[in-house]
Amino acid sequence: MYKCSLERMSDKIKTFSTFGDAGHGGITRYSLSPAAHQAREEFVKRMEAIGAKIECDDVACMYATLEGTDPNAKRIVMGSHCDSVKNGGNYDGILGVMTGMEVLETVAAENIPHKHPLTAMIWTNEEGSLYPPAMMVSGIICNDYLPPELAVNFKYDNMMASKPMDDSEFANFGEALAATKFKGPKENRISPDKYCAMFEAHLEQGPILEDEGNEVGAVQLVMGMFNYSVKFSGFSAHAGTFPMAKRHDALYAAASFLVELHNRYDALNAEVVASGQPEFVYTTGEINVHPCIHTVIPDEAVFSLDVRHPDPEVRKKAMDILKELAAKDWCLCKCEIEEQWVRDTVYFDKNLVGFVEESMEELGLKWQKILSGAGHDAQFCAYMIPTTMLFARTKDGLSHCEPEHVSDEDCTAVASATLNAVLKADKFYD
Amino acid sequence: MYKCSLERMSDKIKTFSTFGDAGHGGITRYSLSPAAHQAREEFVKRMEAIGAKIECDDVACMYATLEGTDPNAKRIVMGSHCDSVKNGGNYDGILGVMTGMEVLETVAAENIPHKHPLTAMIWTNEEGSLYPPAMMVSGIICNDYLPPELAVNFKYDNMMASKPMDDSEFANFGEALAATKFKGPKENRISPDKYCAMFEAHLEQGPILEDEGNEVGAVQLVMGMFNYSVKFSGFSAHAGTFPMAKRHDALYAAASFLVELHNRYDALNAEVVASGQPEFVYTTGEINVHPCIHTVIPDEAVFSLDVRHPDPEVRKKAMDILKELAAKDWCLCKCEIEEQWVRDTVYFDKNLVGFVEESMEELGLKWQKILSGAGHDAQFCAYMIPTTMLFARTKDGLSHCEPEHVSDEDCTAVASATLNAVLKADKFYD
Repeated sequence: MYKCSLERMSDKIKTFSTFGDAGHGGITRYSLSPAAHQAREEFVKRMEAIGAKIECDDVACMYATLEGTDPNAKRIVMGSHCDSVKNGGNYDGILGVMTGMEVLETVAAENIPHKHPLTAMIWTNEEGSLYPPAMMVSGIICNDYLPPELAVNFKYDNMMASKPMDDSEFANFGEALAATKFKGPKENRISPDKYCAMFEAHLEQGPILEDEGNEVGAVQLVMGMFNYSVKFSGFSAHAGTFPMAKRHDALYAAASFLVELHNRYDALNAEVVASGQPEFVYTTGEINVHPCIHTVIPDEAVFSLDVRHPDPEVRKKAMDILKELAAKDWCLCKCEIEEQWVRDTVYFDKNLVGFVEESMEELGLKWQKILSGAGHDAQFCAYMIPTTMLFARTKDGLSHCEPEHVSDEDCTAVASATLNAVLKADKFYD
Repeated sequence: MYKCSLERMSDKIKTFSTFGDAGHGGITRYSLSPAAHQAREEFVKRMEAIGAKIECDDVACMYATLEGTDPNAKRIVMGSHCDSVKNGGNYDGILGVMTGMEVLETVAAENIPHKHPLTAMIWTNEEGSLYPPAMMVSGIICNDYLPPELAVNFKYDNMMASKPMDDSEFANFGEALAATKFKGPKENRISPDKYCAMFEAHLEQGPILEDEGNEVGAVQLVMGMFNYSVKFSGFSAHAGTFPMAKRHDALYAAASFLVELHNRYDALNAEVVASGQPEFVYTTGEINVHPCIHTVIPDEAVFSLDVRHPDPEVRKKAMDILKELAAKDWCLCKCEIEEQWVRDTVYFDKNLVGFVEESMEELGLKWQKILSGAGHDAQFCAYMIPTTMLFARTKDGLSHCEPEHVSDEDCTAVASATLNAVLKADKFYD
């Protein structure tokens, strides 16, 4: 068993937190922004300091590699992203990058023998906060391996044309990419020809590890999900002049529907949990009404519905309830639902998951099996090469916000677990 | 009894509908826009054709006056606005302007004797669609007479600084006003020194006259109202990673509150109606959630609540329910309410209302007493000089939209009722 260095990890956390520092504890570090370039420079500086070879590919992913003893062996890679959401925290993405760096630094410092080349990686533009969509670059790189209904959303040319959602000096993602110095040849992309395994460490972004008193989690899968828009159509009239009984109020319809949907979903969840399965999660994060004027009865209200669970049978039951409710009129308004996207559950590689679990156990960490409700680059990568993820305990379950926090100790624990799992993979693969 | 001309009224309706024609049956005619200037030119042309004298005041209100037989008598004015909402209809506002014009044209054509000068008027910027707020210019002109809590919202300097809500060649209302040729001296403003009565004809904007089979309504009052914002505060977390029971979902809180509020308000309304009073109307037209991202549980949701009824006791009961519900937690979220504005019921002048009712009856029109749920310039003017309103039947109760419609016959009927009521006022006042 090898252990990573708390001191070295703490230093990285402190240093990377300055790149894009928004002044109140968190960061805004859009992909390919000056702040992200600072983080990439730091990655180069620290990796070159241990003798790693730096490469970039055509979509600005970065690879720092320590050669192994077998010149023909494929690489084992540990990576995540260095970009953040607007006013995000100091851990989402960069923890996985720092973990890869820390593993290589430990291997170098302690001269740990390994057959395969070991690579620390930065995936470009995972958040998609400036240039949507999220997981853009893993979607591009893994495109040939994704199910067609997913692949179509990440076509290279379309992604290059992605327009910024906030202030930017570039008109689209392609221009930002053309301007970065961290661009290399397409041959440098991660691929099954040259890579045999991918590990992504990440903060949990939920409260489960904390609530269970565990430090780290061995991620089994990324939950399947469906995301629908739910639209109600009535008609507008003046708030002061139109009798209550004649109204077709689209917002009141939406509110009534939401309350009934919650009641039905909570009842279904009780059944799901009673059957021994984890609960499904469901969220309405977005609502828009038209014309959205305080003196006008809304003629249209549209909200999003996001439902996630590993088991397709559970998702189907949730979908059936949605369809049943949508078939009715609500407050004299018509309801229509439309699929935005759907994805199946992605199971991580059994061998790699096993190596992670063994390592956590052998290190004496408090750990558990856990599911990922969020999407990550690893989920696309899993379609291409054997892949798995490790989670670190997240304070109060908060992420994508400035109070997002993982203790230095838990960051180091997830790095140590990654290191030992990587060494098991190093032995396992030819 | 005198009657206005259906043919002349139809011609005006057809002509004014071309100014700002949006190409699908309605108009967009923002205040002081080129389209509104076309309408003002037409007003001048037609009023000069019957020998009326044209005046403008410092806030671009326009007055066309036929002198009466008594050189010392104060003016009787009939007016409304010529601006519209975006993609509005061909009647809101302009019907009251055309009514004033039609009355003067009838008086001129039939040589009807009158003691007082009779004035047709255009009020500037009633809708406030380009430069908010609504009823801006009547708020400025009547400012000294308004209750202080209303007056403060219409201070001249603040109104001049009002920024456009849509494309405009001007930076603010003051600049638009400086550029218009329909600007004159402040002395020309409507005032109690020079005016003894104001009549405003308007379309009902609701379905009550149509449902009762009546052509016109004698408006008794403008309902008092309160408008509040209702805010729910929870916290944001990731839609895929946060357990349902730990969520503080501000949108679900808002939806639950809205459904309960509707239940309580409908029960209160049943009591109000059982006691012989008209129902109160209540509307949530606006809702905004933060951050409004489909994968993030909202940490804040704010909606508007607009409640209208003539009786302050009924409004107080509605307010008590709002306060009672707001004192509770909703789905683990805190609720806070904040007053946006409140106005008392404005009762129209009893004499003028009586003249309108007598005229409608004597003309053999199908008419009824009616209340106004919407605000109008007449409501501010009523604080300054004796004022009343007449309503015309509105197809399907629709207004502020392109299908807004009043038949030519009903437009002519409301003009005839105005003419005869004006002649009664002409006899009544010294």
